[in-house]
Formats: sequence, structure tokens, C-alpha cells
Amino acid sequence: MATSAYDEQNPFAKILRGELPAHKIYEDDQTLAFMDIMPRGKGHCLVIPKSPVRNILDVDDETLAAVMRTVRKVARASMKAFDAQGVTIHQFNEQAGGQVVFHLHVHVIPRFEGVPLRPHTGEMEDQEVLAQNAQKIRDALKA
Amino acid sequence: MATSAYDEQNPFAKILRGELPAHKIYEDDQTLAFMDIMPRGKGHCLVIPKSPVRNILDVDDETLAAVMRTVRKVARASMKAFDAQGVTIHQFNEQAGGQVVFHLHVHVIPRFEGVPLRPHTGEMEDQEVLAQNAQKIRDALKA
Repeated sequence: MATSAYDEQNPFAKILRGELPAHKIYEDDQTLAFMDIMPRGKGHCLVIPKSPVRNILDVDDETLAAVMRTVRKVARASMKAFDAQGVTIHQFNEQAGGQVVFHLHVHVIPRFEGVPLRPHTGEMEDQEVLAQNAQKIRDALKA
Repeated sequence: MATSAYDEQNPFAKILRGELPAHKIYEDDQTLAFMDIMPRGKGHCLVIPKSPVRNILDVDDETLAAVMRTVRKVARASMKAFDAQGVTIHQFNEQAGGQVVFHLHVHVIPRFEGVPLRPHTGEMEDQEVLAQNAQKIRDALKA
């Protein structure tokens, strides 16, 4: 199986250590949710475990369950926050599976009737837009 | 939020009741895994809960955890079964989110370097191919 050791220098490990900034929307003992900086749709965010897990192939039961509870929480909140009609969940494992950052992460993408996902362009979203969308989801989580 | 009541006549409810056939690969008290009949890649399968859940927006903690444990199990086995280099996980919620069958399901798609996902063509895979691929995953689960 094409798995390797966990790399402590991956960008999400740096976000967890506070060495890189992120527009955070939710945090608990086991998980963190923050905005994707190259969103494929309005309100696209990521949910990650705080423990050093490479992807779904090496995750333990408890961490996986905690991540998915946060995915559900953020999915519900982001539908409210953006008045979305659906949510698409993507999760990629190993390079062939579409994984780019090798810390387990789940994509939560609010969806709107007739609006396709944007392709992966590598284009960064405006920081102010990300900050505003993060605030909308945080508000929906409180409501 | 765009949720509706669970429809007992959806195709996956019928598979669970034995009213429709499926190439089953794994089953436990809470979950069932079987081949997708319109695969987007070799070995594409689905994991569903046995309880009547519409999608991630209405799933309870225990069912969600059980489904994801089976997703991990099948992901690992399908990598072995097909000598895959990665796995892509998709999970769609509500029509705008890409959901077609309204019983919670998670797509587990083995991936191979340089082989893109096939588009949704609506074309049915040959039943013999599905049966053979199901057997390969069952064998990998036993190994």
C-alpha cells in the first residue's frame, strides 16, 4: 500500500502549530475546521484531526469518528450560513487519489442549484472574502 | 435546510430488503458495502448504513462512525485488491450536492497514477466485471 510516514512539515501541521495562518471556523479537542484558500465553491472549508494522521488509510476509529462529527456540524452550519441547497464532501488519499497535503482532511463544499464546482485552478481566494465566509459559518454554528 | 423525509422505496433501501440485487462485498450489523453499478473507476464501491438515513445532514453519531469504519476497511482492501495507488472518497448530500439516491452512501474509488475518474455517463458496467471485482475485494478483506 502506498503509504509513507507522516510529515510534520506539511501545511496543516503548521496551521495546527500556529506557524501558518488560517480562517478558523470551529475547533474542539480532536478537530479543527478552517476555510480552504483555493475554494471550489463559496464557503468551501476543510476539517482535519489535530493528531498526526496521513489520510483515511492510517486513521484510528476515534479520530475518524471525531472528524466526521465535525464534518456533519460544519456541513449543517454552512448550509444555513450560505442558504445552500446541498453539500458535497470530498476526501482524497495518496497522490493518485488526489491528495496534495498529507494530513487527513475532508472537504466540505456548500452547493447551489445549477452552480457546478469550480475546477482546481490553484488560484487563491481573496483573504477578505475568506474572512467574511468564515464569520458566516461561525455565526451559523452559534445559532 | 433542504431535507425531506426518508423514502423507503429508494434503490438502496430495496437492496437492504433484498428486493434488488447487488454485488455485496462486506456486511456487518450496521453497514453494507457493494459495487457501484455505474463505476467511475475500477473497483468503485459504495458503503451505506442499514438504518434509514437520508444523508450526512440527518445521520446520528454512531451510524456515521460505523459507516466510516467500513469506508476505511473497504478503502484499504480495494487498494490491495487492485494494486491501486490511492483512493478517492465522495459523499453527496441533497440534489444540489450531487445526491441521486436518497439513502446515505459513501463512494470509495480506487485510484491509479495517471488514470482520471470517468465522468458520470449513466452507463452500466458489465455484471460479470462487477462480480469479479467484488470477489477481489472480498478476497482482500479476508487476507
